[in-house]
Amino acid sequence: MSLTTREWHFMQRPVGLPGPETFKLVERDLPPLQEGQCLVKNLVLSVDPYMRPRMDAGPSYVPPFELGEALTGSAVGEVVETRSDVPLGSWLVHQAGWREHAVVDAGAARVVDKGRYPSSHYLGVLGGPAFAAYVGLFHIADFRRGDSVFVSGAAGAVGSMVGQFALLAGAKRVVGSAGSSEKVRYLVDELGYDAAFDYKTGPVLEQLRGAFPEGLDVYFDNVGSDHLAAAIDVLNDFGRAAICGTISTYNAVEPHAVPVDAVKVVTKRLRLQGFIAFDHEDLRKDFDSEVGAWLEAGRLMSPETISRGIESVPAAFTGMLTGTNTGKAIVRLAEDQT
Amino acid sequence: MSLTTREWHFMQRPVGLPGPETFKLVERDLPPLQEGQCLVKNLVLSVDPYMRPRMDAGPSYVPPFELGEALTGSAVGEVVETRSDVPLGSWLVHQAGWREHAVVDAGAARVVDKGRYPSSHYLGVLGGPAFAAYVGLFHIADFRRGDSVFVSGAAGAVGSMVGQFALLAGAKRVVGSAGSSEKVRYLVDELGYDAAFDYKTGPVLEQLRGAFPEGLDVYFDNVGSDHLAAAIDVLNDFGRAAICGTISTYNAVEPHAVPVDAVKVVTKRLRLQGFIAFDHEDLRKDFDSEVGAWLEAGRLMSPETISRGIESVPAAFTGMLTGTNTGKAIVRLAEDQT
Repeated sequence: MSLTTREWHFMQRPVGLPGPETFKLVERDLPPLQEGQCLVKNLVLSVDPYMRPRMDAGPSYVPPFELGEALTGSAVGEVVETRSDVPLGSWLVHQAGWREHAVVDAGAARVVDKGRYPSSHYLGVLGGPAFAAYVGLFHIADFRRGDSVFVSGAAGAVGSMVGQFALLAGAKRVVGSAGSSEKVRYLVDELGYDAAFDYKTGPVLEQLRGAFPEGLDVYFDNVGSDHLAAAIDVLNDFGRAAICGTISTYNAVEPHAVPVDAVKVVTKRLRLQGFIAFDHEDLRKDFDSEVGAWLEAGRLMSPETISRGIESVPAAFTGMLTGTNTGKAIVRLAEDQT
Repeated sequence: MSLTTREWHFMQRPVGLPGPETFKLVERDLPPLQEGQCLVKNLVLSVDPYMRPRMDAGPSYVPPFELGEALTGSAVGEVVETRSDVPLGSWLVHQAGWREHAVVDAGAARVVDKGRYPSSHYLGVLGGPAFAAYVGLFHIADFRRGDSVFVSGAAGAVGSMVGQFALLAGAKRVVGSAGSSEKVRYLVDELGYDAAFDYKTGPVLEQLRGAFPEGLDVYFDNVGSDHLAAAIDVLNDFGRAAICGTISTYNAVEPHAVPVDAVKVVTKRLRLQGFIAFDHEDLRKDFDSEVGAWLEAGRLMSPETISRGIESVPAAFTGMLTGTNTGKAIVRLAEDQT
């Protein structure tokens, strides 16, 4: 069977927010399957903040995207042809996103429970962002029952999970920041945050002090910038900051250092730690069982902002970078057939 | 027995480096001993960086010094009168420094091995600075054999211990920064550092990059400021910074934030942690046995800069703040009689 796919290629390294010149939708033939491979039809694909720094040149924890090549990212695809032990019709989570069909190595993909949840959940509440939230909150920040927690980018894919996890695990108080009054309302009314504030309406430090008159134990940073500096001011003795992402810097053209008061870091014995979830695969089993149980019990919301069709991927991506999404930003290419 | 002592009182909160108006030498009568107390004659006393922030108003991890009261700090005294179970003639490490004689509660003091080492060693290589070095290097920074280590303020009381401990524990490479060419020479020629540089002769970042072409695993920070920012640049993946002190800020009148690149903290999974040694008394036994054994075996240098006489305390203190000491800054008030 010979098949073509449409896929997004990376044409030019962006300066600032990526524009139309960054991307090109290309139609191409797929190679024939080798032993151990599947052909998948992508149902949903993920656009994530970390993709933006991959568009810059230079070394990071993942290699930069190559110019002229197809972009990649997480997706859930249905197996439509197989030369592997993965049966036809299975759902696979794999990394060949930004395209409609893909040939994937079955060994590098993960079979998930077809039809138990919408396929999009495997990119959100059961996927990378939720796993990052879990690793950062429970492992890096060493959350303990009774802690007060602040989450920046709280309405995003990771942030919306952090707050819910903290509440389910017995936080004393959970407050989030977001970039609009709608998101602030969403955090409190839908996700159950104790409070939230719009960081665009006033200095973060003042709003954070007001939100935590008794101080803060854990800060989960998705933003970088003045949020981290403010958190260091408000953290209690032995406070911990898990630094997951720095979305405020990803499109920045100017340098973007965070002014850290090292005196406070010492006198309050603070711990600031950056992390990347994929270093912590040893926690995957705990994640699956704990988060799976919360989801099963209906105790976990799974907010998603869904665009439709391969043409919408670049706009979904840049929209996510500027904060138009609430929860996980997802592009749906085909309906789930279960 | 009625006795007077001379002691240094704290007269005025300094702005910047403390001047003569900060201190006043006062003669006063000592109260009679209560049950459980000793009268000690101080042999040596300690001047330490942390005393400077205690001269500022406002909360910190230790309360500020009170105006009009005697200053305090570590000292080793010989018991010259006792109403406790500590025998006459014993050596006690206690907190009633900045004075010639003191009445101390035996329960709040620690008896040390009289005459085994010079009394000054109980303020240096066997005292607070070495314990801070031990806690920070082995516990906070989680030093492992084969790590490359950078120490700022490397010729100071804490720094001179950190480098030696790291070398004894199997560091791959140990480099220190200091504030003069004499200290740089001392670090390499006497303490055995692999290299050292004078931070006053050029940008720290450039010198640090030159010193660690293969990157850095552990940074022990005694300084704050541009040293920490530079270390974040040069640290390898999973690098750790133990932040022990920020002496560059203690006399600062202007704000003194460190510009931290949060992107590097995430992508390199760095951990930055402030600490205060007295939170870690559970490590005291390990410290005593390991460091005691190194000292006993003659493998540990114990650099000290010694001033003499109660009149010299303020100058020893401000000299230490500006870096005139190498190793532990100590004031000797009386000779050891053993």
